[in-house]
Amino acid sequence: MVSPTTKAMQQQDPPLQLQLSSKARRTQEQPISFLIHEALRNPKLINLAAGLVDPLTLPVAECDAITRRLFSDAARGRCALQYDATLGLLDLRRAVLKHIEKMEGIPASKMGLDENCLVVSTGSQQALFLVGEVLVDPGDIVIAANPSYFVYTGTLSSLGANVLTVPMDDDGMDVDAVERLLERLRRDGRLAKVRMVYCTSYYQNPTGLTLSAERRPRLLELVKRYSAHAGHRILILEDAAYRELRYDGPAHRSIKSYDAENRYTVISHTFSKPFAPGLKLGYSAMPPDLLHAVAQQKGNHDFGSANLTQHIALEALRDGSYDKHVIELQHAYKSKRDAMLAALRRSMPQVPGLSWMTPHGGLYVWVTLPESIDTSRGSAMFNECVQRGVLYVPGAYCFQPDEKTGRVATNHLRLSFGQVAPDQIEPGIERLAAVIKHQVAIAGRASAGAAVASAS
Amino acid sequence: MVSPTTKAMQQQDPPLQLQLSSKARRTQEQPISFLIHEALRNPKLINLAAGLVDPLTLPVAECDAITRRLFSDAARGRCALQYDATLGLLDLRRAVLKHIEKMEGIPASKMGLDENCLVVSTGSQQALFLVGEVLVDPGDIVIAANPSYFVYTGTLSSLGANVLTVPMDDDGMDVDAVERLLERLRRDGRLAKVRMVYCTSYYQNPTGLTLSAERRPRLLELVKRYSAHAGHRILILEDAAYRELRYDGPAHRSIKSYDAENRYTVISHTFSKPFAPGLKLGYSAMPPDLLHAVAQQKGNHDFGSANLTQHIALEALRDGSYDKHVIELQHAYKSKRDAMLAALRRSMPQVPGLSWMTPHGGLYVWVTLPESIDTSRGSAMFNECVQRGVLYVPGAYCFQPDEKTGRVATNHLRLSFGQVAPDQIEPGIERLAAVIKHQVAIAGRASAGAAVASAS
Repeated sequence: MVSPTTKAMQQQDPPLQLQLSSKARRTQEQPISFLIHEALRNPKLINLAAGLVDPLTLPVAECDAITRRLFSDAARGRCALQYDATLGLLDLRRAVLKHIEKMEGIPASKMGLDENCLVVSTGSQQALFLVGEVLVDPGDIVIAANPSYFVYTGTLSSLGANVLTVPMDDDGMDVDAVERLLERLRRDGRLAKVRMVYCTSYYQNPTGLTLSAERRPRLLELVKRYSAHAGHRILILEDAAYRELRYDGPAHRSIKSYDAENRYTVISHTFSKPFAPGLKLGYSAMPPDLLHAVAQQKGNHDFGSANLTQHIALEALRDGSYDKHVIELQHAYKSKRDAMLAALRRSMPQVPGLSWMTPHGGLYVWVTLPESIDTSRGSAMFNECVQRGVLYVPGAYCFQPDEKTGRVATNHLRLSFGQVAPDQIEPGIERLAAVIKHQVAIAGRASAGAAVASAS
Repeated sequence: MVSPTTKAMQQQDPPLQLQLSSKARRTQEQPISFLIHEALRNPKLINLAAGLVDPLTLPVAECDAITRRLFSDAARGRCALQYDATLGLLDLRRAVLKHIEKMEGIPASKMGLDENCLVVSTGSQQALFLVGEVLVDPGDIVIAANPSYFVYTGTLSSLGANVLTVPMDDDGMDVDAVERLLERLRRDGRLAKVRMVYCTSYYQNPTGLTLSAERRPRLLELVKRYSAHAGHRILILEDAAYRELRYDGPAHRSIKSYDAENRYTVISHTFSKPFAPGLKLGYSAMPPDLLHAVAQQKGNHDFGSANLTQHIALEALRDGSYDKHVIELQHAYKSKRDAMLAALRRSMPQVPGLSWMTPHGGLYVWVTLPESIDTSRGSAMFNECVQRGVLYVPGAYCFQPDEKTGRVATNHLRLSFGQVAPDQIEPGIERLAAVIKHQVAIAGRASAGAAVASAS
């Protein structure tokens, strides 16, 4: 019942709404928000969902030494506390260019790169956002793997992109399927709408899969060929956030490294995974004309990311603490990955349709359950996990709906060995395995019941 | 001449263009870029153009002490180097809420505010961008003063906004003119398109003018009244970047402080001007429904600004170094402002039409020249200044074209006493005055010549 006072107030001041932009109306809440909420509600919960890095590995001592050095030199300290360029600190761009050369094993000149092809961003996410913003109008097509990094596919959807997908296999994104899709779009006269192919080429979030060596130059060749058909350049946006978290397997050259003239590829790296998320810095190399457009947008966003943390990142690259830290991380995460895989082998029931990937790097283990088990938020499986005190990311968030049926796969889950404490991995997997056993039993009874019902 | 090899290459690989988004095509380079270029080309040049803060005032010792404290506590150091929330560090939002209460002299509850109405952004510019992004579709109307802060009007244009302007007088934005404009839009049936009124209420960039006490609640009352006509809420976006750089005159309450239910106003503050740009942090208070939309966008942009610099800002607010630093800045800039005003009085020629504002805060002195003098980039006046080694911001950048004539005023210039060294203010103004005398003499001869020509 509305009280007379409330009613009078409503009459005085009608609850006028905001008129939000079409972009705002297209923008969804990040699905991880509710997972963070669950984790905060129950501190005893073992969080295998969070994509955070391991707090115990964070380079506190290194950053302590670096900031002491920075601020003990008044002139340098002032530089770090002043504004700097929209593209980022020039010395940092030079240092990351050298770092890229080291990772690729070839000189920057062979990739058509210099420091003016680089932009430093507020995490690599901002660079991904900016590239999308300057390329995508509503209705434009972006090609991505299914599944993909859901934060970015959400970003693309908010830009109005039509995200078309191709499957993945053990060699990463299915490049033959990309070719078939491009060819179909060409035949349908839709090639003019295609803007880019988004590809996480190393230890993909969520699957942990890596694009094979052989597919890298092939994907580049494909976008070149179909660019000629399209009459404009179709780009590859290569997300290399997890590249340096490599535990075994080969250290692949990037797709970008094959693009000798720097015309068809963008590569985005971050300081968050291999060093410290708190600096919130990423760096991306891209063709000059794209960089020009990105820099103009970034001028409107913030005219440059935090300068102080750029000076810290620069010093970490210069004094060797960055390289040293990456090696420490590789050891620490490798042993956590091994612990998670061992726990999965020990605890998981042996049922048809249950399997998981073995990642050679990154932070994630991707688990596939029998199709009868729904892992979505609010499902019996999800709720039982929350009750038993273990959290995962429902796989459905990582899929785009099927173009024809509108459906997404609901029988996957993403586990992370990133943030969880080493001694919590085994109990976490045990809790998860117990729930899966229970849910498999329920599904078995239900299908037996259905069989009885249909037989009767 | 094209060599055969080049020609062959071109045939193999036609120079395909990028297909940029409509937003990218609307986005212009920030006009200050070329000023930065000029300044770098000639280090002897006295830069009265740069809106940078004074490097000598930057809080190096304070940040040194704070980072030592942060990193000597391993647990706290890890927090600062990890990810945090998209809206910003909760403790920082609580601390800035208290700071807002202190500035306003009233409790947050009387403004309908709590820490969940606040977002921490990558400088206040990012907050201004996000508010524009979630409110403005191409063709929507934003009302601003003429002149206004050109970076933001450029941002609005890139969003496709139709920026309609009202003049300013000694009391700041002409609120009567806002009313006439809103009334005209209502009569023309265009009120549905109006999204917000952008107002720099303290020591505006570029004019130094402050919105008078009397106009603050009036502007709020106006948007409320016309919101009811429009059928949606029209917001005030209050840019308070320079608020704490107050040298004399009253410390006004914000427009926001009159909005008891937190429904019609956004206020954006920054750490850049009153503390250190290198932290690249701003904080904005806004209605909950707008905040929700802004947070979702920010989730796509970067899911949170640099966490380390947020911890530094938090400590500066907590340990009193922020407040102490603001008082030091007020003294330092006041004496630089006084030096600039004294130099102008001493050096400027006494000619009709030449005048300047006396700002009570901020970093800028706005100079009006006789209409016969063009101050634009590439003008005789501008080029002579560069030759003589002094740089200003052409006033034309700060104006929107007149709705009817499409013209902008070209006889103003913005001077800044921000970055320039104290002992460079007088010689800088002397160089500028010499150029103005010369240009006035040339204009006088030209008009005398024209008079002779028209008489003959």
